[in-house]
Amino acid sequence: MTMVEEVVAIEEEINAVAAPPPNFSVVEDGVYRSSFPKPSNFAFLETLNLESIICLCPEPYPEENLEFLQSHNIRLFHFGIEGKTDLSQSIVKDTITEALKVLIDVKNHPVLIHCNSGKHRTGCLVGCMRKLQNWCLDSVFEEYKKFAGAKSRNTDLEFIESFDISNMRQCLYSIIYQYQGFASNKPRLLFRSGDNNVQKPQLTKV
Amino acid sequence: MTMVEEVVAIEEEINAVAAPPPNFSVVEDGVYRSSFPKPSNFAFLETLNLESIICLCPEPYPEENLEFLQSHNIRLFHFGIEGKTDLSQSIVKDTITEALKVLIDVKNHPVLIHCNSGKHRTGCLVGCMRKLQNWCLDSVFEEYKKFAGAKSRNTDLEFIESFDISNMRQCLYSIIYQYQGFASNKPRLLFRSGDNNVQKPQLTKV
Repeated sequence: MTMVEEVVAIEEEINAVAAPPPNFSVVEDGVYRSSFPKPSNFAFLETLNLESIICLCPEPYPEENLEFLQSHNIRLFHFGIEGKTDLSQSIVKDTITEALKVLIDVKNHPVLIHCNSGKHRTGCLVGCMRKLQNWCLDSVFEEYKKFAGAKSRNTDLEFIESFDISNMRQCLYSIIYQYQGFASNKPRLLFRSGDNNVQKPQLTKV
Repeated sequence: MTMVEEVVAIEEEINAVAAPPPNFSVVEDGVYRSSFPKPSNFAFLETLNLESIICLCPEPYPEENLEFLQSHNIRLFHFGIEGKTDLSQSIVKDTITEALKVLIDVKNHPVLIHCNSGKHRTGCLVGCMRKLQNWCLDSVFEEYKKFAGAKSRNTDLEFIESFDISNMRQCLYSIIYQYQGFASNKPRLLFRSGDNNVQKPQLTKV
Protein backbone atom coordinates (compact mmCIF):
# COMPACT_ATOMS: atom_id res chain seq x y z
CA MET A 1 0.00 0.00 0.00
CA THR A 2 1.20 3.47 -0.75
CA MET A 3 1.06 6.12 1.93
CA VAL A 4 -1.91 7.73 0.19
CA GLU A 5 -3.77 4.42 0.07
CA GLU A 6 -3.09 3.90 3.75
CA VAL A 7 -4.41 7.34 4.61
CA VAL A 8 -7.54 6.65 2.56
CA ALA A 9 -8.03 3.30 4.30
CA ILE A 10 -7.72 4.86 7.74
CA GLU A 11 -10.11 7.64 6.80
CA GLU A 12 -12.64 5.16 5.45
CA GLU A 13 -12.53 3.23 8.67
CA ILE A 14 -12.90 6.38 10.72
CA ASN A 15 -15.78 7.57 8.58
CA ALA A 16 -17.69 4.29 8.67
CA VAL A 17 -21.10 4.93 10.14
CA ALA A 18 -21.70 3.26 13.48
CA ALA A 19 -25.15 1.77 13.85
CA PRO A 20 -25.80 0.66 17.42
CA PRO A 21 -28.82 -1.60 17.98
CA PRO A 22 -31.93 0.38 18.99
CA ASN A 23 -32.12 1.08 22.71
CA PHE A 24 -28.35 0.64 23.02
CA SER A 25 -26.68 2.14 26.05
CA VAL A 26 -23.73 1.76 28.36
CA VAL A 27 -24.92 0.50 31.76
CA GLU A 28 -21.56 0.48 33.50
CA ASP A 29 -18.01 0.24 32.36
CA GLY A 30 -17.99 -3.08 30.46
CA VAL A 31 -21.76 -3.63 30.66
CA TYR A 32 -24.02 -2.73 27.73
CA ARG A 33 -27.72 -3.15 26.96
CA SER A 34 -29.72 -3.06 23.75
CA SER A 35 -32.51 -4.56 21.70
CA PHE A 36 -31.86 -7.73 19.67
CA PRO A 37 -28.79 -7.01 17.50
CA LYS A 38 -29.22 -7.38 13.75
CA PRO A 39 -26.42 -7.99 11.23
CA SER A 40 -26.45 -4.26 10.44
CA ASN A 41 -25.33 -3.69 14.04
CA PHE A 42 -22.44 -6.18 13.99
CA ALA A 43 -19.83 -3.63 12.85
CA PHE A 44 -20.76 -1.45 15.81
CA LEU A 45 -20.71 -4.39 18.23
CA GLU A 46 -17.19 -5.20 17.06
CA THR A 47 -16.02 -1.91 18.54
CA LEU A 48 -17.16 -3.05 22.01
CA ASN A 49 -14.76 -6.03 22.05
CA LEU A 50 -17.40 -8.12 23.77
CA GLU A 51 -16.41 -11.07 25.89
CA SER A 52 -19.98 -12.31 26.22
CA ILE A 53 -23.64 -11.73 25.48
CA ILE A 54 -26.58 -12.38 27.80
CA CYS A 55 -29.69 -13.09 25.75
CA LEU A 56 -32.97 -13.19 27.65
CA CYS A 57 -35.21 -14.48 24.83
CA PRO A 58 -36.30 -18.13 24.78
CA GLU A 59 -36.09 -18.56 20.97
CA PRO A 60 -33.07 -20.28 19.39
CA TYR A 61 -30.32 -17.75 18.69
CA PRO A 62 -30.29 -16.75 14.99
CA GLU A 63 -27.69 -18.49 12.85
CA GLU A 64 -26.10 -15.24 11.64
CA ASN A 65 -25.76 -13.96 15.21
CA LEU A 66 -24.19 -17.26 16.26
CA GLU A 67 -21.69 -16.93 13.40
CA PHE A 68 -20.82 -13.41 14.51
CA LEU A 69 -20.25 -14.63 18.06
CA GLN A 70 -18.12 -17.56 16.94
CA SER A 71 -15.95 -15.46 14.66
CA HIS A 72 -15.29 -13.00 17.50
CA ASN A 73 -14.95 -15.54 20.33
CA ILE A 74 -17.94 -14.08 22.15
CA ARG A 75 -19.59 -16.37 24.67
CA LEU A 76 -23.38 -16.63 24.68
CA PHE A 77 -25.30 -16.94 27.95
CA HIS A 78 -28.81 -17.81 26.91
CA PHE A 79 -31.53 -17.39 29.56
CA GLY A 80 -34.96 -17.90 28.08
CA ILE A 81 -37.75 -15.77 29.53
CA GLU A 82 -40.99 -15.43 27.61
CA GLY A 83 -41.73 -11.88 26.51
CA LYS A 84 -45.03 -11.61 28.32
CA THR A 85 -44.26 -13.89 31.19
CA ASP A 86 -45.98 -13.85 34.57
CA LEU A 87 -43.14 -12.30 36.55
CA SER A 88 -44.51 -13.54 39.85
CA GLN A 89 -43.46 -17.09 38.93
CA SER A 90 -40.52 -18.13 41.05
CA ILE A 91 -38.77 -19.57 38.00
CA VAL A 92 -38.37 -16.05 36.61
CA LYS A 93 -36.66 -14.90 39.78
CA ASP A 94 -34.35 -17.90 39.59
CA THR A 95 -33.53 -17.15 35.96
CA ILE A 96 -32.84 -13.47 36.66
CA THR A 97 -30.67 -14.49 39.62
CA GLU A 98 -28.61 -16.77 37.40
CA ALA A 99 -28.31 -14.07 34.74
CA LEU A 100 -27.27 -11.58 37.43
CA LYS A 101 -24.48 -13.89 38.56
CA VAL A 102 -23.13 -14.00 35.01
CA LEU A 103 -23.59 -10.23 34.65
CA ILE A 104 -21.59 -9.20 37.72
CA ASP A 105 -18.73 -11.58 37.01
CA VAL A 106 -15.95 -9.43 35.54
CA LYS A 107 -14.58 -12.47 33.73
CA ASN A 108 -17.55 -12.08 31.38
CA HIS A 109 -17.00 -8.37 30.69
CA PRO A 110 -17.42 -6.57 28.39
CA VAL A 111 -20.93 -8.02 28.24
CA LEU A 112 -24.03 -7.03 26.27
CA ILE A 113 -27.48 -7.75 27.71
CA HIS A 114 -30.35 -7.93 25.26
CA CYS A 115 -33.85 -9.28 24.80
CA ASN A 116 -36.08 -8.28 21.88
CA SER A 117 -36.86 -4.61 22.47
CA GLY A 118 -34.31 -4.02 25.23
CA LYS A 119 -37.13 -2.70 27.39
CA HIS A 120 -38.74 -5.22 29.72
CA ARG A 121 -36.61 -8.30 30.35
CA THR A 122 -33.38 -6.33 29.92
CA GLY A 123 -34.83 -3.55 32.08
CA CYS A 124 -35.66 -6.03 34.84
CA LEU A 125 -32.16 -7.52 34.84
CA VAL A 126 -30.49 -4.09 34.85
CA GLY A 127 -32.90 -2.96 37.59
CA CYS A 128 -31.91 -5.91 39.78
CA MET A 129 -28.24 -5.13 39.17
CA ARG A 130 -28.87 -1.53 40.28
CA LYS A 131 -30.44 -2.84 43.48
CA LEU A 132 -27.29 -4.84 44.09
CA GLN A 133 -25.39 -1.58 43.58
CA ASN A 134 -27.70 0.00 46.17
CA TRP A 135 -29.21 2.53 43.81
CA CYS A 136 -32.24 4.11 45.43
CA LEU A 137 -35.47 2.73 43.99
CA ASP A 138 -36.42 6.09 42.43
CA SER A 139 -33.28 6.00 40.29
CA VAL A 140 -33.76 2.35 39.40
CA PHE A 141 -37.31 3.02 38.25
CA GLU A 142 -36.31 6.17 36.36
CA GLU A 143 -33.75 4.19 34.40
CA TYR A 144 -36.22 1.39 33.67
CA LYS A 145 -38.80 3.87 32.40
CA LYS A 146 -36.28 5.71 30.24
CA PHE A 147 -35.76 2.57 28.18
CA ALA A 148 -39.30 1.22 28.32
CA GLY A 149 -40.80 4.57 27.37
CA ALA A 150 -44.54 4.35 26.73
CA LYS A 151 -44.33 0.55 27.13
CA SER A 152 -43.39 0.74 30.82
CA ARG A 153 -45.00 -2.11 32.79
CA ASN A 154 -45.96 -1.89 36.44
CA THR A 155 -45.49 -5.65 36.77
CA ASP A 156 -41.81 -5.16 35.85
CA LEU A 157 -41.42 -2.40 38.45
CA GLU A 158 -43.05 -4.63 41.07
CA PHE A 159 -40.74 -7.46 40.09
CA ILE A 160 -37.67 -5.26 40.53
CA GLU A 161 -38.91 -3.84 43.81
CA SER A 162 -39.65 -7.26 45.29
CA PHE A 163 -36.51 -8.94 43.93
CA ASP A 164 -34.55 -10.12 46.95
CA ILE A 165 -30.85 -9.47 46.63
CA SER A 166 -29.95 -10.42 50.20
CA ASN A 167 -28.90 -13.97 49.28
CA MET A 168 -26.66 -12.71 46.54
CA ARG A 169 -25.24 -10.04 48.81
CA GLN A 170 -24.40 -12.61 51.47
CA CYS A 171 -22.56 -14.53 48.81
CA LEU A 172 -20.71 -11.34 47.83
CA TYR A 173 -19.76 -10.63 51.45
CA SER A 174 -18.17 -14.02 51.72
CA ILE A 175 -16.16 -13.36 48.55
CA ILE A 176 -15.05 -9.97 49.88
CA TYR A 177 -13.86 -11.49 53.11
CA GLN A 178 -12.23 -14.35 51.31
CA TYR A 179 -10.29 -12.11 48.95
CA GLN A 180 -9.70 -9.04 51.04
CA GLY A 181 -9.72 -10.23 54.59
CA PHE A 182 -11.77 -8.71 57.37
CA ALA A 183 -9.33 -5.91 58.07
CA SER A 184 -9.01 -4.59 54.53
CA ASN A 185 -10.38 -1.16 53.77
CA LYS A 186 -10.54 -1.98 50.08
CA PRO A 187 -13.56 -4.19 49.55
CA ARG A 188 -13.23 -4.09 45.78
CA LEU A 189 -15.77 -6.24 44.07
CA LEU A 190 -18.02 -6.77 41.15
CA PHE A 191 -16.07 -4.75 38.65
CA ARG A 192 -12.55 -4.46 37.44
CA SER A 193 -10.21 -3.05 39.98
CA GLY A 194 -6.76 -1.55 39.94
CA ASP A 195 -7.40 1.11 37.31
CA ASN A 196 -7.96 4.53 38.75
CA ASN A 197 -9.49 5.78 35.54
CA VAL A 198 -12.41 3.42 35.37
CA GLN A 199 -15.66 3.87 37.12
CA LYS A 200 -15.86 2.59 40.65
CA PRO A 201 -19.08 0.92 41.65
CA GLN A 202 -20.86 1.43 44.91
CA LEU A 203 -19.07 -1.48 46.50
CA THR A 204 -15.62 -0.10 45.84
CA LYS A 205 -13.72 1.97 48.34
CA VAL A 206 -10.50 3.58 47.17
CA MET B 1 -11.11 -1.50 65.66
CA THR B 2 -12.10 -5.04 66.49
CA MET B 3 -12.79 -7.48 63.70
CA VAL B 4 -16.51 -7.23 64.38
CA GLU B 5 -16.40 -3.43 64.16
CA GLU B 6 -14.52 -3.68 60.89
CA VAL B 7 -17.07 -6.05 59.43
CA VAL B 8 -19.86 -3.71 60.52
CA ALA B 9 -18.07 -0.73 58.95
CA ILE B 10 -17.61 -2.56 55.65
CA GLU B 11 -21.24 -3.68 55.66
CA GLU B 12 -22.44 -0.15 56.38
CA GLU B 13 -20.46 1.17 53.48
CA ILE B 14 -21.74 -1.53 51.18
CA ASN B 15 -25.31 -0.95 52.29
CA ALA B 16 -25.25 2.83 51.91
CA VAL B 17 -27.94 3.83 49.44
CA ALA B 18 -26.60 5.28 46.21
CA ALA B 19 -28.57 8.25 44.94
CA PRO B 20 -27.47 9.25 41.43
CA PRO B 21 -28.66 12.63 40.19
CA PRO B 22 -31.88 12.39 38.13
CA ASN B 23 -31.23 11.55 34.47
CA PHE B 24 -27.87 10.04 35.36
CA SER B 25 -26.31 7.67 32.86
CA VAL B 26 -23.02 6.36 31.59
CA VAL B 27 -22.34 7.77 28.11
CA GLU B 28 -19.06 5.98 27.47
CA ASP B 29 -16.39 4.53 29.67
CA GLY B 30 -15.32 7.55 31.74
CA VAL B 31 -18.06 9.87 30.45
CA TYR B 32 -21.23 10.45 32.47
CA ARG B 33 -24.29 12.69 32.12
CA SER B 34 -26.92 13.88 34.56
CA SER B 35 -29.07 16.72 35.78
CA PHE B 36 -27.59 19.31 38.16
CA PRO B 37 -26.11 17.34 41.09
CA LYS B 38 -27.40 18.20 44.56
CA PRO B 39 -25.60 17.56 47.85
CA SER B 40 -27.70 14.42 48.28
CA ASN B 41 -25.96 13.06 45.18
CA PHE B 42 -22.40 13.80 46.28
CA ALA B 43 -21.88 10.41 47.94
CA PHE B 44 -22.82 8.73 44.69
CA LEU B 45 -20.60 11.04 42.64
CA GLU B 46 -17.67 10.12 44.88
CA THR B 47 -17.90 6.57 43.56
CA LEU B 48 -17.21 7.82 40.02
CA ASN B 49 -13.77 9.21 40.94
CA LEU B 50 -14.38 12.17 38.67
CA GLU B 51 -11.47 14.08 37.22
CA SER B 52 -13.67 16.88 35.93
CA ILE B 53 -17.17 18.24 35.47
CA ILE B 54 -18.55 20.05 32.42
CA CYS B 55 -21.35 22.37 33.49
CA LEU B 56 -23.41 23.93 30.70
CA CYS B 57 -25.44 26.38 32.81
CA PRO B 58 -24.55 30.08 32.84
CA GLU B 59 -25.31 30.66 36.53
CA PRO B 60 -22.48 30.80 39.09
CA TYR B 61 -21.70 27.31 40.39
CA PRO B 62 -23.29 26.73 43.83
CA GLU B 63 -20.96 27.13 46.78
CA GLU B 64 -21.63 23.65 48.16
CA ASN B 65 -20.92 22.07 44.76
CA LEU B 66 -17.68 24.06 44.52
CA GLU B 67 -16.67 22.78 47.94
CA PHE B 68 -17.37 19.22 46.87
CA LEU B 69 -15.22 19.70 43.78
CA GLN B 70 -12.38 21.27 45.73
CA SER B 71 -12.34 18.58 48.38
CA HIS B 72 -12.15 15.89 45.69
CA ASN B 73 -9.78 17.67 43.31
CA ILE B 74 -12.37 17.74 40.56
CA ARG B 75 -11.82 20.34 37.86
CA LEU B 76 -14.78 22.43 36.72
CA PHE B 77 -15.20 23.37 33.06
CA HIS B 78 -17.95 25.93 33.04
CA PHE B 79 -19.57 26.70 29.67
CA GLY B 80 -22.56 28.95 30.06
CA ILE B 81 -25.45 28.36 27.68
CA GLU B 82 -28.85 29.83 28.51
CA GLY B 83 -31.53 27.19 29.03
CA LYS B 84 -33.80 28.46 26.29
CA THR B 85 -31.18 29.81 23.97
CA ASP B 86 -31.59 30.35 20.23
CA LEU B 87 -29.43 27.45 19.12
CA SER B 88 -28.92 28.92 15.66
CA GLN B 89 -26.61 31.56 17.15
CA SER B 90 -23.06 30.82 16.11
CA ILE B 91 -21.86 31.47 19.66
CA VAL B 92 -23.70 28.34 20.81
CA LYS B 93 -21.90 26.24 18.20
CA ASP B 94 -18.60 27.71 19.35
CA THR B 95 -19.39 26.95 22.98
CA ILE B 96 -20.43 23.38 22.22
CA THR B 97 -17.27 22.95 20.14
CA GLU B 98 -15.13 24.08 23.07
CA ALA B 99 -17.02 21.81 25.46
CA LEU B 100 -16.59 18.93 23.02
CA LYS B 101 -12.84 19.45 22.98
CA VAL B 102 -12.76 19.17 26.76
CA LEU B 103 -15.09 16.16 26.66
CA ILE B 104 -13.04 14.04 24.27
CA ASP B 105 -9.75 14.74 26.00
CA VAL B 106 -9.00 11.63 28.05
CA LYS B 107 -6.92 13.73 30.44
CA ASN B 108 -10.25 15.05 31.74
CA HIS B 109 -11.82 11.62 32.25
CA PRO B 110 -13.76 10.46 34.17
CA VAL B 111 -15.95 13.46 33.35
CA LEU B 112 -19.55 14.29 34.22
CA ILE B 113 -21.58 16.51 31.86
CA HIS B 114 -24.57 18.28 33.33
CA CYS B 115 -26.91 21.22 32.82
CA ASN B 116 -30.11 21.67 34.84
CA SER B 117 -32.38 18.84 33.75
CA GLY B 118 -29.75 16.84 31.85
CA LYS B 119 -32.04 16.91 28.83
CA HIS B 120 -31.41 19.70 26.35
CA ARG B 121 -27.96 21.26 26.65
CA THR B 122 -26.44 18.00 27.86
CA GLY B 123 -28.34 16.14 25.15
CA CYS B 124 -26.94 18.46 22.48
CA LEU B 125 -23.36 18.01 23.66
CA VAL B 126 -23.68 14.23 23.86
CA GLY B 127 -25.37 14.22 20.45
CA CYS B 128 -22.44 16.10 18.91
CA MET B 129 -20.03 13.67 20.53
CA ARG B 130 -21.98 10.77 19.00
CA LYS B 131 -21.64 12.42 15.58
CA LEU B 132 -17.91 12.52 16.13
CA GLN B 133 -18.12 8.81 16.92
CA ASN B 134 -19.99 8.39 13.62
CA TRP B 135 -23.17 7.12 15.20
CA CYS B 136 -25.95 7.12 12.62
CA LEU B 137 -28.34 10.01 13.13
CA ASP B 138 -31.25 7.70 14.03
CA SER B 139 -29.29 6.40 17.03
CA VAL B 140 -28.14 9.89 18.03
CA PHE B 141 -31.73 11.15 18.00
CA GLU B 142 -33.04 8.07 19.83
CA GLU B 143 -30.57 8.70 22.62
CA TYR B 144 -31.41 12.40 22.80
CA LYS B 145 -35.14 11.62 23.03
CA LYS B 146 -34.64 8.96 25.69
CA PHE B 147 -33.28 11.60 28.06
CA ALA B 148 -35.47 14.51 26.96
CA GLY B 149 -38.63 12.43 27.13
CA ALA B 150 -41.76 14.50 26.63
CA LYS B 151 -39.58 17.65 26.64
CA SER B 152 -37.80 16.74 23.39
CA ARG B 153 -37.12 19.84 21.27
CA ASN B 154 -36.91 19.82 17.50
CA THR B 155 -34.56 22.81 17.64
CA ASP B 156 -32.09 20.64 19.57
CA LEU B 157 -32.35 17.85 17.01
CA GLU B 158 -31.79 20.38 14.21
CA PHE B 159 -28.80 21.76 16.07
CA ILE B 160 -27.25 18.30 16.41
CA GLU B 161 -27.98 17.42 12.79
CA SER B 162 -26.43 20.62 11.45
CA PHE B 163 -23.45 20.65 13.82
CA ASP B 164 -20.35 20.45 11.65
CA ILE B 165 -17.76 18.08 13.03
CA SER B 166 -15.46 18.19 10.00
CA ASN B 167 -13.14 20.80 11.48
CA MET B 168 -12.79 18.83 14.66
CA ARG B 169 -12.25 15.64 12.71
CA GLN B 170 -9.50 17.23 10.65
CA CYS B 171 -7.87 18.18 13.90
CA LEU B 172 -8.22 14.57 15.10
CA TYR B 173 -6.73 13.21 11.89
CA SER B 174 -3.66 15.32 12.40
CA ILE B 175 -3.30 14.00 15.94
CA ILE B 176 -3.71 10.42 14.74
CA TYR B 177 -1.01 10.86 12.15
CA GLN B 178 1.21 12.65 14.58
CA TYR B 179 0.95 9.93 17.21
CA GLN B 180 0.52 6.81 15.14
CA GLY B 181 2.19 7.55 11.84
CA PHE B 182 0.57 7.07 8.47
CA ALA B 183 1.36 3.37 8.27
CA SER B 184 -0.11 2.34 11.60
CA ASN B 185 -3.16 0.15 11.60
CA LYS B 186 -3.98 1.18 15.14
CA PRO B 187 -5.43 4.67 14.98
CA ARG B 188 -6.32 4.68 18.64
CA LEU B 189 -7.75 7.95 19.75
CA LEU B 190 -10.17 9.78 21.91
CA PHE B 191 -10.38 7.25 24.68
CA ARG B 192 -8.04 5.29 26.86
CA SER B 193 -6.10 2.71 24.98
CA GLY B 194 -4.00 -0.27 25.92
CA ASP B 195 -6.60 -2.04 28.02
CA ASN B 196 -8.33 -4.81 26.16
CA ASN B 197 -11.15 -4.90 28.68
CA VAL B 198 -12.37 -1.38 28.21
CA GLN B 199 -14.72 -0.26 25.56
CA LYS B 200 -13.21 0.67 22.24
CA PRO B 201 -14.71 3.62 20.44
CA GLN B 202 -15.50 3.84 16.77
CA LEU B 203 -12.10 5.27 16.00
CA THR B 204 -10.20 2.37 17.47
CA LYS B 205 -9.03 -0.56 15.41
CA VAL B 206 -7.63 -3.53 17.30
